[in-house]
Amino acid sequence: MAADETAPVSRGRVTITEIARQAGVSVPTVSRVVNGRSDVSPETRARVEDLLRLHGYRKRPSSVPARAALLDLVFNDLDSPWAVEIIRGVEEIAHAAGVGTVVSAIHGRSGDAREWMRNLRARASDGVILVTSALEPTLHEQLRILGVPLVVVDPTGSPGFDTPTIGAANWAGGLAATEHLLSLGHRRIGLIAGPPRLLCSRARFDGYRAALEAAGLGVDESLVVPGDFHPESGFTGCTALLDLPEPPTALFAASDQMALGAIEALRRRGLRVPEDMSVVGFDDLPEVRWSAPPLTTVRQPLADMGKLAVRTVLSLARGEQPDSPRVELGTELVVRSSTAPPTPVQ
Amino acid sequence: MAADETAPVSRGRVTITEIARQAGVSVPTVSRVVNGRSDVSPETRARVEDLLRLHGYRKRPSSVPARAALLDLVFNDLDSPWAVEIIRGVEEIAHAAGVGTVVSAIHGRSGDAREWMRNLRARASDGVILVTSALEPTLHEQLRILGVPLVVVDPTGSPGFDTPTIGAANWAGGLAATEHLLSLGHRRIGLIAGPPRLLCSRARFDGYRAALEAAGLGVDESLVVPGDFHPESGFTGCTALLDLPEPPTALFAASDQMALGAIEALRRRGLRVPEDMSVVGFDDLPEVRWSAPPLTTVRQPLADMGKLAVRTVLSLARGEQPDSPRVELGTELVVRSSTAPPTPVQ
Repeated sequence: MAADETAPVSRGRVTITEIARQAGVSVPTVSRVVNGRSDVSPETRARVEDLLRLHGYRKRPSSVPARAALLDLVFNDLDSPWAVEIIRGVEEIAHAAGVGTVVSAIHGRSGDAREWMRNLRARASDGVILVTSALEPTLHEQLRILGVPLVVVDPTGSPGFDTPTIGAANWAGGLAATEHLLSLGHRRIGLIAGPPRLLCSRARFDGYRAALEAAGLGVDESLVVPGDFHPESGFTGCTALLDLPEPPTALFAASDQMALGAIEALRRRGLRVPEDMSVVGFDDLPEVRWSAPPLTTVRQPLADMGKLAVRTVLSLARGEQPDSPRVELGTELVVRSSTAPPTPVQ
Repeated sequence: MAADETAPVSRGRVTITEIARQAGVSVPTVSRVVNGRSDVSPETRARVEDLLRLHGYRKRPSSVPARAALLDLVFNDLDSPWAVEIIRGVEEIAHAAGVGTVVSAIHGRSGDAREWMRNLRARASDGVILVTSALEPTLHEQLRILGVPLVVVDPTGSPGFDTPTIGAANWAGGLAATEHLLSLGHRRIGLIAGPPRLLCSRARFDGYRAALEAAGLGVDESLVVPGDFHPESGFTGCTALLDLPEPPTALFAASDQMALGAIEALRRRGLRVPEDMSVVGFDDLPEVRWSAPPLTTVRQPLADMGKLAVRTVLSLARGEQPDSPRVELGTELVVRSSTAPPTPVQ
């Protein structure tokens, strides 16, 4: 086997031989670290990775064999109907570009994430789109060393590094949802919030607060209950609000699935939507066109976010830099049948 | 370039040279047909393909370069929440086997299907799982010639050839849904059927009929309305049934999405589920746990169907034959809140 095959070199920068010399290890050991193999001690791996990072080492692109292009679309979990919206957008653009879309789920487990990274390396993927999922810093670093471009869709936190991110205008969406309820005459407006560790949750909450403050109302903390975006938490949150001495007359749920859970909590109590409680969601999943009643919600352009992610990752793969490292696509209020003016108290 | 690279030979059977001789064309022309290139006249292509089929020609597997395994998961459209259930099952098993899942949609358009086939060939996919989608016979034939194993999930019609298929026990599901309504005391039970060209629709209808006949009732054709599995057709179908001089007291919708459309039609008329009409769906999509009311439905094991499809396609890729060319996984009635005994007429 030619040395060339086991020891890829960077583009005009530090060589793998130099890294080996500085680390006090053999060239094949550095190769094993670069290629993500497990037969290296943690201490040696850390020392070599520090040196690779220090010197900005990147694996030579020409070591990738010529074959059809692939990109990796990685979810934390494939348990939400909005995943299919993103897949639909990504597939449409990737298909047209002759690029295959490899879909994976890593379940927030580091074992699954490392396994995925090994597979990604073996199939020589050309780019990665990561959806709402915090990747461990070491895997970020491995992608960088491999020279595989990464784009994050709907980041759950500050992704750090110089990773481009694509999100929705969450703050503006929270503002629009709350302004809609205010314009109908509601003054006591509950919020079922998303997980506070997610940036998108915090932005939706701030939009809710901004609308209330612009109307001369503050946030009544007793009307804000926590949720996790899943329907069960909408059910529980709405039940808690209904148990208040003076429940709200309207409700902004920070996800459609929580709105559906809230509507079921109302139905169980014999309360009608929108007569007894107006409900606004967030996402505009295809199914909420057919909820009972059809849901007023904030449309998040999930498929468009997927499309833009593909375009961005393919342009990064061509060596181009994105115009902006952080893009937010617009959200839009869609008014259906779950909102109405408050019923006057008898 | 060595002749070997342009003229793969079959395993101890007919050579490409012999096919060329019999077809009266050059060896490179036969290679172009085998490799699916477009620069061959339709007449020549047809003549060569006939001979390839006649002789059972298969491309030599060793012409595929060594690299990470991939399988192709192909939908007609990525427009239904049940797609994500199948993707979830496929990804789980493929990921564990170190195989990447490439997701595509071909939209029932032959141009998209041919484009997909070109990409499949370029990425040297190891297997194909086709979901409810009629592939053109010529593409079936190309897969066979390439030696790429194919499994069909939930076939829309008889797939022909010797393709293994994986479905759900649709007939038993239709029977269970209708028996459940009969056991509650319903005698006028409507059906919103699926598209009759799909095998699964016909099996669900026959299960409905078998349950009625076992109860000494025949099918009242006026209570059967057509649908296409989408919510709009459930809305329209339910509305038509409500406009009958004597509407049914219960309804079996052959998909969950049609059941949701039917529930919305009832809500618009001020009718309650299940007090005024019982509704049973089919699929058990995650969202119907949170419909208003939560839906009684027939669970179709979509993720399990995806898992079995991966296991089958990987065993075919290893050269093994499946135990049975046609597998049906069991369906299960899930009783929630959308069904109840009929309300006695006042």
